[in-house]
Amino acid sequence: MRVDRFQNHAVLGFVDWTLRGVGQVVFQNNPLAGLVILAGLLVNSWIYAAICVVGVVASTLTAIVLKADKALIRDGLFGFNGALVALALVAFTSEDFRAGAIPSVAMLTYLICAAALTTMAFASIAALLGPHKVAPLTMPFVFVGWLFLFAVLKFDAIDAGPMAKPVSPDQFPYNAPYDLRTWYEGIGTSIGQIFFQDNWITGYIIIVGMAINSRISATMALLGAVIGTVVAVMFGGPEGAIRDGLFGYNAALTAIALGGFFLVLTWSSFLYAVFGAIVSAWLWASIAIFLKPIGMPVLTSTFVIVTWTMLIGQYAFKALVPVPPAEATTPEDNRRRYLEESERSQT
Amino acid sequence: MRVDRFQNHAVLGFVDWTLRGVGQVVFQNNPLAGLVILAGLLVNSWIYAAICVVGVVASTLTAIVLKADKALIRDGLFGFNGALVALALVAFTSEDFRAGAIPSVAMLTYLICAAALTTMAFASIAALLGPHKVAPLTMPFVFVGWLFLFAVLKFDAIDAGPMAKPVSPDQFPYNAPYDLRTWYEGIGTSIGQIFFQDNWITGYIIIVGMAINSRISATMALLGAVIGTVVAVMFGGPEGAIRDGLFGYNAALTAIALGGFFLVLTWSSFLYAVFGAIVSAWLWASIAIFLKPIGMPVLTSTFVIVTWTMLIGQYAFKALVPVPPAEATTPEDNRRRYLEESERSQT
Amino acid sequence: MRVDRFQNHAVLGFVDWTLRGVGQVVFQNNPLAGLVILAGLLVNSWIYAAICVVGVVASTLTAIVLKADKALIRDGLFGFNGALVALALVAFTSEDFRAGAIPSVAMLTYLICAAALTTMAFASIAALLGPHKVAPLTMPFVFVGWLFLFAVLKFDAIDAGPMAKPVSPDQFPYNAPYDLRTWYEGIGTSIGQIFFQDNWITGYIIIVGMAINSRISATMALLGAVIGTVVAVMFGGPEGAIRDGLFGYNAALTAIALGGFFLVLTWSSFLYAVFGAIVSAWLWASIAIFLKPIGMPVLTSTFVIVTWTMLIGQYAFKALVPVPPAEATTPEDNRRRYLEESERSQT
Repeated sequence: MRVDRFQNHAVLGFVDWTLRGVGQVVFQNNPLAGLVILAGLLVNSWIYAAICVVGVVASTLTAIVLKADKALIRDGLFGFNGALVALALVAFTSEDFRAGAIPSVAMLTYLICAAALTTMAFASIAALLGPHKVAPLTMPFVFVGWLFLFAVLKFDAIDAGPMAKPVSPDQFPYNAPYDLRTWYEGIGTSIGQIFFQDNWITGYIIIVGMAINSRISATMALLGAVIGTVVAVMFGGPEGAIRDGLFGYNAALTAIALGGFFLVLTWSSFLYAVFGAIVSAWLWASIAIFLKPIGMPVLTSTFVIVTWTMLIGQYAFKALVPVPPAEATTPEDNRRRYLEESERSQT
Repeated sequence: MRVDRFQNHAVLGFVDWTLRGVGQVVFQNNPLAGLVILAGLLVNSWIYAAICVVGVVASTLTAIVLKADKALIRDGLFGFNGALVALALVAFTSEDFRAGAIPSVAMLTYLICAAALTTMAFASIAALLGPHKVAPLTMPFVFVGWLFLFAVLKFDAIDAGPMAKPVSPDQFPYNAPYDLRTWYEGIGTSIGQIFFQDNWITGYIIIVGMAINSRISATMALLGAVIGTVVAVMFGGPEGAIRDGLFGYNAALTAIALGGFFLVLTWSSFLYAVFGAIVSAWLWASIAIFLKPIGMPVLTSTFVIVTWTMLIGQYAFKALVPVPPAEATTPEDNRRRYLEESERSQT
Repeated sequence: MRVDRFQNHAVLGFVDWTLRGVGQVVFQNNPLAGLVILAGLLVNSWIYAAICVVGVVASTLTAIVLKADKALIRDGLFGFNGALVALALVAFTSEDFRAGAIPSVAMLTYLICAAALTTMAFASIAALLGPHKVAPLTMPFVFVGWLFLFAVLKFDAIDAGPMAKPVSPDQFPYNAPYDLRTWYEGIGTSIGQIFFQDNWITGYIIIVGMAINSRISATMALLGAVIGTVVAVMFGGPEGAIRDGLFGYNAALTAIALGGFFLVLTWSSFLYAVFGAIVSAWLWASIAIFLKPIGMPVLTSTFVIVTWTMLIGQYAFKALVPVPPAEATTPEDNRRRYLEESERSQT
């Protein structure tokens, strides 16, 4: 499908870039994928869909005003962290996590500034990781999200109730039995939770959106969610947390990142991605327990920590074939280019 | 005013370097500015003035003994973190935060070692940030300060009562009304708090000291303090914390750093600095709440985090004109050099 | 003593590398030293000796499978963090810290994965610190250890009781008097605690193992342990924590690292190492207090933090003679090479 039609369009360009920004949350540089994902959010709650747009627009506009690199802006790379931080701020300050609440003016100002700051954080983290050819991933969002979530709870002008959403496994009962719903809802919601959507149908719509651009990435996302759920069940994690997709969303992201996107897909990197997904599931619990005393959610920190740990040293391991962020397009493309190159160098 | 008279003097050189060290806390490489600031501290408490001297001497001497770069030593760059860590250790272990207490011998040994360690931390952080042309700021102080403050509370030989000073906004009553004193005391004390001085008059004296060297920096400091106070009032921060200058001291430092010192002052960088000051005010509350469970004060961590986030990626934004730390003198000089260079390159 | 006989042996090579891995915990690239240290663990508990082997084998095998640099593998550099993380996971989940407990199958799977992850973390941290010529030290272990310890406490399939081992100085009574045992047990156990062995005899055996390879390193380890103990006694630390070696194990490691291993041994670097050991003793207490609310042990984080702080900026201090990690063999060798080179450059 030709999807680059509007990227350089004078008027529709900006729409194209922001839709790509939505897609980039799950590594899809494709406006149509972004549109389907946005529709997935809309199915769950129009408020979240709107907030997602506000966030991606705020951080992309900031990049334009600051005269950042145009190629990065057009690929939506300044947008996805803004979208996530806006969603997180609304999700964790709404009385009803599932549907979200319309933010006040003070809150809206606040979340727009947070989205703008992710643009600066993105540039800084990219500069720091540049020599290692590793991407900032969603660290700008996690970093800004944590900083802004703390303060929000203590300003009078922002009406934040006690956080309604459990943020740690030990806030769920430990004796609930696993059943079929644990599985199909847990796996779907794992994908939904990447966008703070407590809705398994939204999760499966996001998978469809991803598949438009890359079937390998969509498969890896699903595999990651399955691994997260299996690991949690095998190690006896609480059913409520599993069905809520909490063990799976970081695992899904790690599986996409390591499974073909930043490493050429081979049997070695496939197993590497599976290992990363298993570790992500465990460490979600770990970081949740660490953050619980201060009431802070994990966000996608586990995904970033595990993926960075497994990628920053990538050039030390000859069993892996790294793809520098600037060349990472889709797992399919990355692999094709690698095979072509290997062929050329053999003849 | 000629202020470089003593920098290379055999005997008075050391005095010059340490006074510059005091000035460098607020980015003033000027012994006279340092002297006026020291006088400001003396107005509040002779103990703090003396401790400030002990700290700056200890860390500067350490740099000399370790044979660090002479140019850096002579500009007071190894002194300001030592001064701050010495002040912080006394401030947070004194029963009366405002006046401070004379430290015991054990405590004195301890704070001299802490000041010495800031010299090593400065070199390390400078090495890490070198490739990005970003300065260590007060991170050596924050880092060493946190590490040494924790332990001090648990040694028998150091008589530390419970921390007398509130460290978080929620330790202040939320229903006190704002009045005129909130404003003029809050703004002054914001500047005072940079040196742990709970005294608004000291704050305004520091501004005067800064103005000797750079009127732009003095103005930005004041503007930052005003922004911190306005933001806190608008978002309903507790009056006691505002009057105590707690929302403003990080905002003031961020405003100085971004407003002409590390970025050439233009309309873009001015707005960038204002944005940084607003974010610093919010995030002071954030980090205060994060640290409260362990009873640790924020110190100037918010300033460092916000400024680093906004500077490390500076070369990605063509709307900004970075000034590398080695060339940063005063906002006035930085701008003059930039304009001269632009002119030359046009002809 | 010829100890390189088996390093390139087809069959026994792997045994050689893993024994070196055990030795590398205390910077000894020597299989015989590793063997003696393992015997020291065996004296305390066969379970710990076995777990140590499991850990070092798991992380070394991971490096082989991922095709890491052979020279690093053969020097045991991918093994020591795996050994430590395996020991830590068993130590802090056993009802009896001193003897350890045989891990369940779930736990064994878990700790093998943790050991494998240290290999990736080692490569990543080495890449990050590469430009500064500073080694990852035991940071891969501390990082993975913390992450995996948190989660372990919340999975049903892993039967972890409440952590039996005190992790902070204020969990010991403050009024117990110091006696002779405080000293000779405290110093020995300080060395034992590096391997989580609550046994002063094991500690002294480890010193003997080190002395086989480097008498300077063995002496510095002992000196570090003594400094840790003296500092704790002078500042009134609790007797139980001192006798448990808790103030000394980080100090001992810092003293080895700075005392001849990563800096050529001179009077300057000797005093630098002593300063580092003193600071490590203080900051153990600091980090213990910071981590207590979340029940996490300090591990060797203090050693890493202090040593990094004192080494990353090493090239800024002309009073020190750095030894890049790739050239660091033993303090004796480092000094001999330096003296030869100085002589050559003078003639």
